[in-house]
Amino acid sequence: MALIVQKYGGSSVADAEGIKSVARRVAATREKGNQVVVVVSAMGETTDQLINLAHQVTEKADDRELDVLLSTGELVSSTLLAMALKSLGYEAISLSGAQAGIWTDAVYSRARIITVEAHRIVKELEEGKIVIVAGFQGITRDMDITTLGRGGSDTTAVAMAASLGADICEIYTDVEGVYTADPRLVPQARKLAEIGYEEMLELASYGAKVLHPRAVELGELFNIPVLVASSFTEAPGTLIQGGIAMEVRNKVRGIAHDLDVAKITILGVPDRPGIATAIFESLAKENINVDTIVQNASVDRITDLTFTVAKSESEKAMRAVEPAVKSIGARGCVLNANLGKVSIIGTGMQNVPGFAARMFRALYEQGINIELITTSEIRITCIIDQARVPDALVALHKAFELEKEGI
Amino acid sequence: MALIVQKYGGSSVADAEGIKSVARRVAATREKGNQVVVVVSAMGETTDQLINLAHQVTEKADDRELDVLLSTGELVSSTLLAMALKSLGYEAISLSGAQAGIWTDAVYSRARIITVEAHRIVKELEEGKIVIVAGFQGITRDMDITTLGRGGSDTTAVAMAASLGADICEIYTDVEGVYTADPRLVPQARKLAEIGYEEMLELASYGAKVLHPRAVELGELFNIPVLVASSFTEAPGTLIQGGIAMEVRNKVRGIAHDLDVAKITILGVPDRPGIATAIFESLAKENINVDTIVQNASVDRITDLTFTVAKSESEKAMRAVEPAVKSIGARGCVLNANLGKVSIIGTGMQNVPGFAARMFRALYEQGINIELITTSEIRITCIIDQARVPDALVALHKAFELEKEGI
Repeated sequence: MALIVQKYGGSSVADAEGIKSVARRVAATREKGNQVVVVVSAMGETTDQLINLAHQVTEKADDRELDVLLSTGELVSSTLLAMALKSLGYEAISLSGAQAGIWTDAVYSRARIITVEAHRIVKELEEGKIVIVAGFQGITRDMDITTLGRGGSDTTAVAMAASLGADICEIYTDVEGVYTADPRLVPQARKLAEIGYEEMLELASYGAKVLHPRAVELGELFNIPVLVASSFTEAPGTLIQGGIAMEVRNKVRGIAHDLDVAKITILGVPDRPGIATAIFESLAKENINVDTIVQNASVDRITDLTFTVAKSESEKAMRAVEPAVKSIGARGCVLNANLGKVSIIGTGMQNVPGFAARMFRALYEQGINIELITTSEIRITCIIDQARVPDALVALHKAFELEKEGI
Repeated sequence: MALIVQKYGGSSVADAEGIKSVARRVAATREKGNQVVVVVSAMGETTDQLINLAHQVTEKADDRELDVLLSTGELVSSTLLAMALKSLGYEAISLSGAQAGIWTDAVYSRARIITVEAHRIVKELEEGKIVIVAGFQGITRDMDITTLGRGGSDTTAVAMAASLGADICEIYTDVEGVYTADPRLVPQARKLAEIGYEEMLELASYGAKVLHPRAVELGELFNIPVLVASSFTEAPGTLIQGGIAMEVRNKVRGIAHDLDVAKITILGVPDRPGIATAIFESLAKENINVDTIVQNASVDRITDLTFTVAKSESEKAMRAVEPAVKSIGARGCVLNANLGKVSIIGTGMQNVPGFAARMFRALYEQGINIELITTSEIRITCIIDQARVPDALVALHKAFELEKEGI
């Protein structure tokens, strides 16, 4: 008997039929003799509808209130799934984030899980029940409801699996697994049977929407195998885990992309201590997520500082840095909001020469200009014109022979 | 500075405009220097939509799950109202039933409030906030969500007022107050400026939908003045309180009616101890609310036993009593599900002869047959053909001169 945590996304529980279908899948897992904890997202477009409702009432929704409002979406789907399972003859119970013991900090709309106190879940499991947990939500020590922000339900599921010592965390979604590149843009893209945590983390962080990087990090931290698979088919999916076989290392495993990139360059920045602090503290104060940061060492003590943010936050970011730009005596700042990002990812790339050169040549041959380059140990990222991202993906997929069979 | 609890029903917060309008009314109350606690129902038809959703998933929704599902409706409206108030520049915070400290028993779908631990509300009020409480819901000591059943939000409001020692509990709804009879059926009906708890209790219990009897009872118990008024106009409403002036006693104050009456008669019941127990325990076991019970003393130790239930529960009630009917050796049972109920209500009627006679004559003159009669100290009720209820109301309103000016 294994203990399995399953997570079903919003498109899987979009309507009553979807919920009944998920109930049958959960029941099948139970029938194999497993203990099952299920984490659900809100039904289909519910979260967007609730946000829309809030915007009808107020231009600027209060964060605390918005979190309570949004948390109702997962309460609805989790209770309906529990009802559906009961009507199939299974003992089931739904628990809110609070009831499931998911304690978070008080940063509304993007709370982080502090700890999971799973005694209620353990008790219900011991009584033979299937436990349904409302994803995406938690509670503070002051008993205020929070939501976990992007990737919230994935994070709930992996945190649950870690806390319960589950054998596996299965993420069911509307794609069949992790691909070498986005199959909608690269027809040759191939589903990976397995992938390591680090590679998945880079893929997820650099644009693969299939699983949120927070969930991958958590999986790695607690060494929980995470399966990503479709909730609509029986196809095998992709297993994310540690200890990937030696021979699949030292090659590019996948290509991530992101179409939502804006670049802000601060021109003529005096190169002295405290400058970066002034800039990035002003962004942090406005809760703006900064992605890539690049600053070249200067020769004449004047340099340019470039960073990227999500396009939706670019105007806000420009306003936020303006006072700092003035106070540090920089020449000004420039926004380019029509960019995209392509990244090649694979463990051990740094030890093998030529990956970067091959990437740059592939882009050059398509006539694609590179705006910015950053790298990590297992990733090389180029920021390019947004309109050229699809061409870049196809070219890179071919250049690194990702269509070839492998694990 | 007064402490005022206001309750707004579902039709008052049916959409974003309604919520903004309620926010302006709440703000106006705050502007007068009052502390304000607001209890809200779910938006418009939300509760029915959620029930419908549950029925799409399962034929028989689990009670515990259904309560969590339904409780989300009031979470949505309460957070939206808090947002609307904040956008008007007022400090406001929404609290769920659990956060508001509304502890109930664990009888799902019709939980009773055990106690209100209002320290969180008191703290927020002391910080100068307007507190919005999600109506209709509470929490058990095992931290499971419950709903209070019919009249739940009214009950939340009065319980809140009692627990906080509020100066008044104001119930805002889609009617302008308590009328001498339903103005939709009796054009001559007149709005009462005030009414006593007991009279209101009988009016509410016998069909006046304006306020739930549970809320009236609670108001009387803790001596909380309850104002019933429209959330759409500035009309003055009806004040429900103790100590009504002497001169308005000893007359009929209002006429209640109910179109949802089914009568079950058990024929040929042996008149011996334990018979009623057998019948009514079988109904209680099925959670069926029995309204009126009538049994005539028998001369030949064989009698008929009659009781009424809501029409929607009549078939279930027939099935529930069947085994008991057989085991006690009764002749059988008969259902009449097309009945209505009219009641005249006024304190001190029992001390003044002739009320009953006047009522029966008024019905007789309309050719209306009386199926059943029951009385209390301040009420006389006749059960009649459902189709004749409107005629009966008009005739009784005239017979007791309720159109005449008075308090």
